[in-house]
Amino acid sequence: MLQTLLNHKSIRKYKTNKIDDNTLNQILEAGSRASTTGNMQVYSIIVTKDNEIKNQLWEAHFKQDMVKQAPIILTFCADFNRFNKWCKLRNANPGYDNFLSFYTASIDALLAAQNVAVAAEDFKLGVCYLGTTTYMADKIKNILDLPENVVPVTTLVLGYPDEEPELTDRLPLKGIIHYEKYNNYSDEQINEIYAEKEDLESTKELLKINQKENLAQIFTDNRYTKKDNMLFSEMFLKHIENQLFMNNK
Amino acid sequence: MLQTLLNHKSIRKYKTNKIDDNTLNQILEAGSRASTTGNMQVYSIIVTKDNEIKNQLWEAHFKQDMVKQAPIILTFCADFNRFNKWCKLRNANPGYDNFLSFYTASIDALLAAQNVAVAAEDFKLGVCYLGTTTYMADKIKNILDLPENVVPVTTLVLGYPDEEPELTDRLPLKGIIHYEKYNNYSDEQINEIYAEKEDLESTKELLKINQKENLAQIFTDNRYTKKDNMLFSEMFLKHIENQLFMNNK
Repeated sequence: MLQTLLNHKSIRKYKTNKIDDNTLNQILEAGSRASTTGNMQVYSIIVTKDNEIKNQLWEAHFKQDMVKQAPIILTFCADFNRFNKWCKLRNANPGYDNFLSFYTASIDALLAAQNVAVAAEDFKLGVCYLGTTTYMADKIKNILDLPENVVPVTTLVLGYPDEEPELTDRLPLKGIIHYEKYNNYSDEQINEIYAEKEDLESTKELLKINQKENLAQIFTDNRYTKKDNMLFSEMFLKHIENQLFMNNK
Repeated sequence: MLQTLLNHKSIRKYKTNKIDDNTLNQILEAGSRASTTGNMQVYSIIVTKDNEIKNQLWEAHFKQDMVKQAPIILTFCADFNRFNKWCKLRNANPGYDNFLSFYTASIDALLAAQNVAVAAEDFKLGVCYLGTTTYMADKIKNILDLPENVVPVTTLVLGYPDEEPELTDRLPLKGIIHYEKYNNYSDEQINEIYAEKEDLESTKELLKINQKENLAQIFTDNRYTKKDNMLFSEMFLKHIENQLFMNNK
């Protein structure tokens, strides 16, 4: 089991083989057993196989080919719609149109997503998370007919791997773990934590291609720029508000 | 493996037995292998064993006894502090003081948390998530000395179980899964999805104790009230802003 977790690799190339329903159902069942706030299960999972809808999702997810290749796209949503409907049918007055409830539902959706990812890998399937979900939340809402009180928070691409990538590097454990309290980093510690990553052959390759001085600048100037982050922050917050999760303001 | 996921139960009573460092390190290593946005690993995990600090955390987490009982408390934080320090040391200009970056870091922290939970259960340890983390984020910040650009998003209690609870009920899978697009619920479907939960002996017991007509009202009137949600929304948003993640506004 531990080996499944330790061997995780994001897969970005997929075979066209379909996933049988029995396997898919066991994976989704494993997702539904994840911890959930007060056992409310305030999330939904959208299973998309239809090629036309997948094409639309491919457009939304910055045209990453794996979205078309892989047989199944799973969109995980923070969802108070179902719970609110239940409350109203029972003459109970739901008070979940606020940021805390959105964040609570996000936690539920993300814990379920990770259980699904682990279960899928245990079945020798490949997965990849799509960070583009929050950037394009409003577009995805339109594609998947998401009602109010539902916000897409992450997406898993699911299928049989058509590549065998190496394990990705990670920071040394001591770089992300703190004992008792947060021990803030000295410059020396930062240099130490990032040394291995900066010294990778793949990093040196990236610097050549991108004509940058160092890896940090590739993140700030190319991959995750302030301009994009500001734009997507505004879009995502607006979407959360439109989906009626900001009535605390 | 699948069995570990399917058999998850939150544990709320713990033996005082300590967890050896080798086991803990393997569990944390499994956490660090979870997917992370652009391999940035923008999260931190605080491992607290010290009784005095645990006492302070117990206060913050609504005095739930398991926080004192269990040998280890793991606080998962959205963390751009380390990454920002690295960028600045490398003459790169970080643009991560915004809501999208906070949410991205939250996803990283939560996927790592679920890997830790699964790995711990595979070692026959018990875990329980504490939803009180977001309610009391500012208090937890003070206890754990969290710097700017760090926000606690969830907590796992970790230890050897001193109880053997039954599996908790879940909604039928069809209640949380949608095929192709979101299929909004009819009243009839809502009744069907919640029927089993409403019919449990434990639910009937709860209604007697709480003197309520139905389970939904226990959620809206007792457990997760609009008043609390509004208050905690304001407090959490203020905390996120104070931790410098809302400079997009």
